Amino acid sequence: MKRIGILGGLAWPATIEYYKAICQLSQKHHANLNLPGPSPMPEMCIESVNINYSYNRRGSFGNEKSWKDYDEYFHAALKRLEDNGVDFAIIASNTPHNRYDSITKGLKIPVISIFESVAETCKINEIDEFLLLGTEPTMNSGVFPDYLKRHGIRAIVPSDETVKLKVVGLISELFKGKSENGRSRIDQVVRSSFEQTEIKKKVVCLACTELPLVFEGKEQYETFGDNGVFYLNTTIIHANAAFRYAIEG
Amino acid sequence: MKRIGILGGLAWPATIEYYKAICQLSQKHHANLNLPGPSPMPEMCIESVNINYSYNRRGSFGNEKSWKDYDEYFHAALKRLEDNGVDFAIIASNTPHNRYDSITKGLKIPVISIFESVAETCKINEIDEFLLLGTEPTMNSGVFPDYLKRHGIRAIVPSDETVKLKVVGLISELFKGKSENGRSRIDQVVRSSFEQTEIKKKVVCLACTELPLVFEGKEQYETFGDNGVFYLNTTIIHANAAFRYAIEG
Repeated sequence: MKRIGILGGLAWPATIEYYKAICQLSQKHHANLNLPGPSPMPEMCIESVNINYSYNRRGSFGNEKSWKDYDEYFHAALKRLEDNGVDFAIIASNTPHNRYDSITKGLKIPVISIFESVAETCKINEIDEFLLLGTEPTMNSGVFPDYLKRHGIRAIVPSDETVKLKVVGLISELFKGKSENGRSRIDQVVRSSFEQTEIKKKVVCLACTELPLVFEGKEQYETFGDNGVFYLNTTIIHANAAFRYAIEG
Repeated sequence: MKRIGILGGLAWPATIEYYKAICQLSQKHHANLNLPGPSPMPEMCIESVNINYSYNRRGSFGNEKSWKDYDEYFHAALKRLEDNGVDFAIIASNTPHNRYDSITKGLKIPVISIFESVAETCKINEIDEFLLLGTEPTMNSGVFPDYLKRHGIRAIVPSDETVKLKVVGLISELFKGKSENGRSRIDQVVRSSFEQTEIKKKVVCLACTELPLVFEGKEQYETFGDNGVFYLNTTIIHANAAFRYAIEG
């Protein structure tokens, strides 16, 4: 198996979900081989960064220079993973993917993009449009919707600013590892967004890696249904893509 | 805060407990400072190794040469952490601490020993003897009991081989992230061990970092009482020691 690099801590609860998912996939993969000892695991190196540092260095979209410190912080962490000898890396968070090109510039190792993994899952599930929920940069930068557009997928962000603020508020709680009534709050956001938007199928992309945690008991699945809505879990979609790449070839 | 290196994957469920504990301690530490953005976190680098590889390279105590491959595997992982720039490291598992001296030989960074952290917690809690439960090397090597003896603490391992096998069997399930009736099985082991041993107070050291996971709802405490027994949780004792060191000076 290839050595996996994970840029984590964005926030820590999602890093745990990624790590757990990859370890459980490895157990399943090796389950029937009757190997002596505990299940083989891919070697991993996790660079867990200080989310407070990166959060306070977010720039403004349209002002390239304003992202300098943010980009450098993540680039340096990926470079440490490269120097450590990992075969490839993932960034365990949607938000830095809005700056994917500049963060990964000059690296020799592949960095599997969460946006790409989500686009592939959409193709498999014949999804061509969804409601996009995530952090402020992910909902407002336009980077993820533009990427999806090139793959024939339409991403709709909530049109109402107060709805967006509700999502951002919930995420800030989830960064601490817990939320009050998270599931019903997401439900409310989803319902009011669909009321305001023309959309054929009720599909929601949880494009912040902490959001799936409010769906206790379903958070380990790539996709799941809840209350008549079809959800895309970007955390598990991305972790699965990483494990598949680790065992390929 | 100092950068923390964690040698993990031994097994993965314990690595998650360490990581979660350190992140929650950092949240608590910064809670009342009203800093903008998510709670500051210490930067961490986690080297998650392949437990199947190390397990199958365990040697025999008394035969120094037989541990060569085992020691080298862990030494190399710690060296990668050192090269990565961490300020100190911990090994998130009791078992490799039986080979602490040879594994850490020649490193420049401090590696905080779990045995030392447990001895300190014993002093604070005025504990001078306990029942020691852990993996086969931890119960049989004599290394941890010898270390404790120098600190005036008597560690008693189950005298009955079938009892030891019950502990080892439970641990092999916990390595996969779950166990059937783990709590009542530990309870049974503890009761039968105390029946066969003269001991003043009923104190048990859970000296395998997965064992505390059977005590759901108590697994995040350094010490806890359960069914009239006082338990030492080596996982949280060690994680707490690492965080204290990270914020010192």
